[in-house]
Amino acid sequence: MSISEKDSLIYKQRHTFAHLLAWAVLDLYGGKEKVKLGVGPVIDNGFYYDFNLEERIAVTDLPKIQKRMKQLMKNGFTMTGNEMKQESALEQVNKENQPYKAELINDLPDDEKITFYTLESKKEDSFTDLCAGNHVDTQKELGVFALTKVSGAYWKSDESKDQMQRIYGVAFETQEELDTYLAMLEEAAKRDHRKLGRELDFFTFSELVGAGLPLWTPRGTKLREALDNYIQEMRSEHGYGRVTIPHITKQALYETSGHWEKFGDELFHVSTREGHEYALKPMNCPHHTQIFASKQRSYRDMPQRYAETTMVYRDEQSGELSGLSRVLSITQDDAHVFCREDQVEEELLKIWDIIDTFYKACGFEELKIELSLHDPEEMDKYLGDEKVWEKTEDQLRKVAKKRGVEVIENIGEAAFYGPKIDIIAFDSLGRRWQVATIQVDRNMPNRFNLSCVNEKGDNEEIVMLHAAITGSLERFLSVLIEHHAGKMPVWMSPEQVRIISVGESHIEHVNELTKEFTDAGILAEADTGNESVGKKIRSSAHMKIPYVLVIGDKEIGADNLSIRYRGQEDLLEMSKADFFDKVTKEISERSA
Amino acid sequence: MSISEKDSLIYKQRHTFAHLLAWAVLDLYGGKEKVKLGVGPVIDNGFYYDFNLEERIAVTDLPKIQKRMKQLMKNGFTMTGNEMKQESALEQVNKENQPYKAELINDLPDDEKITFYTLESKKEDSFTDLCAGNHVDTQKELGVFALTKVSGAYWKSDESKDQMQRIYGVAFETQEELDTYLAMLEEAAKRDHRKLGRELDFFTFSELVGAGLPLWTPRGTKLREALDNYIQEMRSEHGYGRVTIPHITKQALYETSGHWEKFGDELFHVSTREGHEYALKPMNCPHHTQIFASKQRSYRDMPQRYAETTMVYRDEQSGELSGLSRVLSITQDDAHVFCREDQVEEELLKIWDIIDTFYKACGFEELKIELSLHDPEEMDKYLGDEKVWEKTEDQLRKVAKKRGVEVIENIGEAAFYGPKIDIIAFDSLGRRWQVATIQVDRNMPNRFNLSCVNEKGDNEEIVMLHAAITGSLERFLSVLIEHHAGKMPVWMSPEQVRIISVGESHIEHVNELTKEFTDAGILAEADTGNESVGKKIRSSAHMKIPYVLVIGDKEIGADNLSIRYRGQEDLLEMSKADFFDKVTKEISERSA
Repeated sequence: MSISEKDSLIYKQRHTFAHLLAWAVLDLYGGKEKVKLGVGPVIDNGFYYDFNLEERIAVTDLPKIQKRMKQLMKNGFTMTGNEMKQESALEQVNKENQPYKAELINDLPDDEKITFYTLESKKEDSFTDLCAGNHVDTQKELGVFALTKVSGAYWKSDESKDQMQRIYGVAFETQEELDTYLAMLEEAAKRDHRKLGRELDFFTFSELVGAGLPLWTPRGTKLREALDNYIQEMRSEHGYGRVTIPHITKQALYETSGHWEKFGDELFHVSTREGHEYALKPMNCPHHTQIFASKQRSYRDMPQRYAETTMVYRDEQSGELSGLSRVLSITQDDAHVFCREDQVEEELLKIWDIIDTFYKACGFEELKIELSLHDPEEMDKYLGDEKVWEKTEDQLRKVAKKRGVEVIENIGEAAFYGPKIDIIAFDSLGRRWQVATIQVDRNMPNRFNLSCVNEKGDNEEIVMLHAAITGSLERFLSVLIEHHAGKMPVWMSPEQVRIISVGESHIEHVNELTKEFTDAGILAEADTGNESVGKKIRSSAHMKIPYVLVIGDKEIGADNLSIRYRGQEDLLEMSKADFFDKVTKEISERSA
Repeated sequence: MSISEKDSLIYKQRHTFAHLLAWAVLDLYGGKEKVKLGVGPVIDNGFYYDFNLEERIAVTDLPKIQKRMKQLMKNGFTMTGNEMKQESALEQVNKENQPYKAELINDLPDDEKITFYTLESKKEDSFTDLCAGNHVDTQKELGVFALTKVSGAYWKSDESKDQMQRIYGVAFETQEELDTYLAMLEEAAKRDHRKLGRELDFFTFSELVGAGLPLWTPRGTKLREALDNYIQEMRSEHGYGRVTIPHITKQALYETSGHWEKFGDELFHVSTREGHEYALKPMNCPHHTQIFASKQRSYRDMPQRYAETTMVYRDEQSGELSGLSRVLSITQDDAHVFCREDQVEEELLKIWDIIDTFYKACGFEELKIELSLHDPEEMDKYLGDEKVWEKTEDQLRKVAKKRGVEVIENIGEAAFYGPKIDIIAFDSLGRRWQVATIQVDRNMPNRFNLSCVNEKGDNEEIVMLHAAITGSLERFLSVLIEHHAGKMPVWMSPEQVRIISVGESHIEHVNELTKEFTDAGILAEADTGNESVGKKIRSSAHMKIPYVLVIGDKEIGADNLSIRYRGQEDLLEMSKADFFDKVTKEISERSA
């Protein structure tokens, strides 16, 4: 969070609420004797505080804590800071038997000034906490808040350290903002992709297989393939060819690329019975360099564009796995362009075109662009020479300017081998998601000694572009499913039309109609079971099927089809030919 | 090898040649003092003998050894057996300082009779070897032979044991047979898929990635996809849906399936930083059971048919890795059908249809069928009850009968969970390859407790069918590339038409024509480089492109296209429309 944000009223309010939360928990759960305080930072939309205490705090306890916080507010308070030397500060927290605070003080440089902030009640006692500051001064400046959830967390996010209980709250300046936000949370819970994924039969998890390892059903795989095929179709038009690589490699590949040194911990290590060390691939670029390097390339062969949708693996901490948002096996729609210096710009623009087209088709209208740049103060984090970085980053700025988009620059957010263009999408609940990314990399070609023979017969250094359109298909689908609340656009729906028979005498007609749709390239399925029509319609609504046809005597005789669009009351009436045209057009045009 | 084969003249001849080989090597390399003898068995088309000696035997030494063997034959010999008690046998081989022979004797049961066979030369000394018998009695009964290669091998095929030098020979009853076979070997070397794969730019290997881990180029991936798409198209017509699974799993999945116990050694073990044990999947069936098990299935949902083309991993010994024939990452075009008892037969017949159609399209005319059955003497090798096995095997016999094919039954060749229908193809050099396999499995459903609710509302046990059409895409492609000597059928060629410009003024026309072909769904590429036409034609021949068009002034003015078909002298002359029709028909009909 930047300094200007820390000075904002809402930051100060949220920060103060975190102190109030800690005070209320101490009051209700036995004081500093029983409760060991962790940290209580401001986060997006609110705050949290971590506690270590024996008693288990459940979500049902939150109203009680919230009530106590409101009482403290009502009583009125002042907040005042107090500077202390490290030694006295340590003495103070040790006296209060607060080991986490002591650890925090010890983590600071010796000469750092330590501050404590005290909430002083006008009617009751007070609460003092180690804190760097930025609060409101009295209760009058506070906005409104609500406690939202409890979860487990490790001290310093380190699973080898103590397990804490974390209480989350949200806070805003006005009641209206809070209400809007709470309504959004409620809506988000309803469209939680983990719930919808199960209901719509897209994916499943198995305890035998493990958390973070989704299994995709035929419906889910159709959805994935619709997205991926569209991306590959556009790539193919831009001259990309698909390649195929194995999912393991000898350690040597990542030693050369630099991944072994940088990400050794996050790699899944594979050992063979002969004692060789392999790794499960955490990314595809090093493998793709080896396809480029398999032949001598002439300038006439450039650019070489490789695309591949394949899984990569990251050894995430099991506590961080959640639905499709954080998984162990990540499907990347990855691509790499190996090109000459003067081809970089054109290739970047092509990728950008694909991204714009794809996100529009998925129903994301507004994209924000951020440039993730190197941090000149920490050049040891990156491969290669700073001059090369600066040149590359200027190139990205130039391309962004050419597209006429506004960009935000984030210092220190680059990949270790190159700067990135990050694409940010906003979902229908206003949430922000970092999705696609384009990277310009002059370091990997250097490490793998990649070149082409130029017009003069010399070896010429080349540039490598990295571009994933969805980034991670799993994470993107978690966003996409929630964005549409499961009502996926027709073109990507695994079942676009369902045709329901009223009685046994209509089954044959339903099956014929279904075949006609299927032959026309529309994903249609027949429901000819012996349940009631009402039950069948409810089932299709539950599965969020876009178009539903009910076929009885009346419909068989009619000139037009009567089509139910996603549970809307009014039926569409049109000829079969017109409906075919409508649906095939929606599919081929990828209408969002 | 069966007893009747061991009694055949050719077996006896090959077996005797192995003894002659050992004798010659002893003669030339310093006798039993310096040469430690391993084993010398009969194999397909010939024999080998394993030796441990300090001196390195190179392929250039084979003529010398061969000459010595022929001399021994010319001198004339008799072969006589001699029975011995174990103790005396051990004494004899120890006296001769032959540790491998001693180990072989010690491996035999105490009461087993030991036999030694002696080749007695009419002009020179003799050679005695531990051997179970079946030789010719004199040189008069011998056929003809040739030594073919030298390779490394581990004693008892165990990489932790001594490294031996293995000399291979081939032998036949007549010179004509030998010549034919050697010509076949020579032709096979020319069409070696490792050589062609590199020349045709299908795949590559990288030392950084490792042996047994092929990287597929855009051309190779197009070839793979042509095969796989065809299989999936046929499967889709039969109601299969694609699924997607992660490549790793918790150990628990394979403990339940029984793979952990059976194949623990061949599994790649993956350990996480939190200390969990995962495995890289060696097969897909256990994962697919978990998709089936994710919902309660009604009899109306049956069968469930899942297909997935995905990699599996086997921890092979590095010495056994070779090109695409034996790899660490195997792409399986896998499928599983979960069905009711009375659906098994129909589903098996559907799979069989796909196999027949696919192999015909790949240019394999004649397929042989073998049933791999359980061995009643070794029921501990298998899961489940013998009665269930017998029932299942009868079902396979019945289905084979229905298709009117002859089958060979192989006792003891079943998978540990069920019997198999194995499909055998013969390539254009007459070599035999086991390719597709269909398995009927009542054990896996039982272990995973898979069922459907039947018409009576009861849980009903189900049956699982396993079916891969190519088996391993890598191994199949190694066979297919050699079968066609790289001249792949048009429908699977990654470049079906190449269009060559004569001069600069023809480039535009070439590019337009290429686009027309591409738009018509034909894989066409333009060669508009500034090399000579002759060089461009040779390059297209080298790449074994099916159709080549050369476009100069004459061709631009002509009514018809002049088409060169894979280097044939006579050009095809036909209108553009007719040629389009011809090629698109070859593609859609998958003409082999």
